[in-house]
Amino acid sequence: MIDPKNFGTVACIGVGLVGCAWAVVFARAGFAVNIHDADAAVLEAAPGRIRLQLDALSDQGLVDEPPSVVAGRVRVVASLEEAVRNAVYVQESILEKADLKRALLEQLEPLDDGRRIIGSSTSGIPASAFASGLRISDRVLVVHPVNPPSLIPLVELVPSPDTGADALNFARELMLACDQSPITVRREIDGFVLNRLQAVLLREAWALVKDGIASVEDIDKTVRDGLGWRWSFMGPFETIDLNAVGGVADYARRLGPLYQRIAASRDHSDSWDAELIAEVEAQRRKLLPQAQLRERSHWRDLRLMAFALHARSGRE
Amino acid sequence: MIDPKNFGTVACIGVGLVGCAWAVVFARAGFAVNIHDADAAVLEAAPGRIRLQLDALSDQGLVDEPPSVVAGRVRVVASLEEAVRNAVYVQESILEKADLKRALLEQLEPLDDGRRIIGSSTSGIPASAFASGLRISDRVLVVHPVNPPSLIPLVELVPSPDTGADALNFARELMLACDQSPITVRREIDGFVLNRLQAVLLREAWALVKDGIASVEDIDKTVRDGLGWRWSFMGPFETIDLNAVGGVADYARRLGPLYQRIAASRDHSDSWDAELIAEVEAQRRKLLPQAQLRERSHWRDLRLMAFALHARSGRE
Repeated sequence: MIDPKNFGTVACIGVGLVGCAWAVVFARAGFAVNIHDADAAVLEAAPGRIRLQLDALSDQGLVDEPPSVVAGRVRVVASLEEAVRNAVYVQESILEKADLKRALLEQLEPLDDGRRIIGSSTSGIPASAFASGLRISDRVLVVHPVNPPSLIPLVELVPSPDTGADALNFARELMLACDQSPITVRREIDGFVLNRLQAVLLREAWALVKDGIASVEDIDKTVRDGLGWRWSFMGPFETIDLNAVGGVADYARRLGPLYQRIAASRDHSDSWDAELIAEVEAQRRKLLPQAQLRERSHWRDLRLMAFALHARSGRE
Repeated sequence: MIDPKNFGTVACIGVGLVGCAWAVVFARAGFAVNIHDADAAVLEAAPGRIRLQLDALSDQGLVDEPPSVVAGRVRVVASLEEAVRNAVYVQESILEKADLKRALLEQLEPLDDGRRIIGSSTSGIPASAFASGLRISDRVLVVHPVNPPSLIPLVELVPSPDTGADALNFARELMLACDQSPITVRREIDGFVLNRLQAVLLREAWALVKDGIASVEDIDKTVRDGLGWRWSFMGPFETIDLNAVGGVADYARRLGPLYQRIAASRDHSDSWDAELIAEVEAQRRKLLPQAQLRERSHWRDLRLMAFALHARSGRE
């Protein structure tokens, strides 16, 4: 395991919502954190954002030290060069554009110290699309969080074909040292793992609404009051492994044919057309008016914190 | 809402694991419950099973009355005729075979009082496959729980084309009176809603293992430490509605094309072949040896109860 005390500094480059949450993650774990953003206004707003997140976490008992102590590890740095100078790890959370990410790497290359690892927060752009052909390519990979990483532990590590095994191992150890839950996506693939699983469930959910089989509200209930319970502490494989006397193979032989039939019953060539989007939107706005979206997002964050506390209590 | 005090009696016919859990659900809500099983040994074992479930729930603070009071509402009845005599609702939880379910309905028809509703616990057989062409067809529907219904609130109500609106409404009110979470599956469809959503996610999960993209353990982590958090208190539609500034329509326009591409990237004609099943099984048995399946199932039940308490605290 990486020891924060002997580790030096992490740099968070790009400190919008995701970058600020990363700063909380690293500082909370004990790392010194340099934050930097090419946009001076964004950089100026960051310490306030970070402090707000820390205070909210502290209110719910989710930070062990006083927020001021954790916030005290975060240093605002106006120049990129200065921000990365002592950093052995850079978490990049700039805009989701491959050319901007490439440009940043080209700025970082001459500042390289021969060992620095760079993780990108991108949710959809593979590292090979912006990191190949550089001297530092073997030390760049995707380190994709669920938003916000300060609350939700999962992190997808996605190496490009250029990424070295050492860089991947370093990123995994670093995430474990921060109490995150890293998984490895062994090859670059559309949506990585998390969004692929989300995508197929959403596609079926939208199709059920389109076909008039169930309402948006009832589909949410199906997951919230049913499927989501086991998934929230076991995941789908352990769920089925414990759902048949003989374990997962027994389950697969009994239910595999039904699941194959269900999956094959859909033609995935269709897009969500304007009419269907309007239908789903209308059903959601009836349940939650547009004006209450922000308030409900606050409620969601409180529920996520309550869930974090609950999950912590169940850890083996 | 149905008032248990003025409601009379519910009959649970078939009292294996699912039927016993149903007896707990009805008795806990205050209903008098007659239990019956064609297999005398199963019937004899049922009160002990019911009491075990009640004691476990009570230990976790999930029953408001003493277990003996709740168990006192359950009466073992040796004859089917006697079991349904005063019942305005029958919950059928016998074996998953259409011909057996049909035979039971044919026994119940001459015992009909002209208003009794019959709900089947079947997870996969539509009511039209065993309930049509009877005098009571309009009062039969599927009332499919997640196992065990005494812990997990979701219940799928699936009317057949013969089911009357009154029967559907009655079943919904009854489930609400029992503090379950009923949803309506408006037309009979393979897997109803819950297993369709589970099916598509599992199909993608298995395909990711087959392609070597991620391990069984990492896919479970992706849901358990990531996706499952929001789903466990919001469901998938509310999750995306709150994940874009403009709500669900905004989200759909931005991410719809990616999700369409992901869903369309799979050919669902393949089955889970023996080799793939062996691979998943091997990965699971490394994480959890066969000999520990039973012990882990007990852990799961404790986690489900802890989750039930947690979910209860967050109810609006």
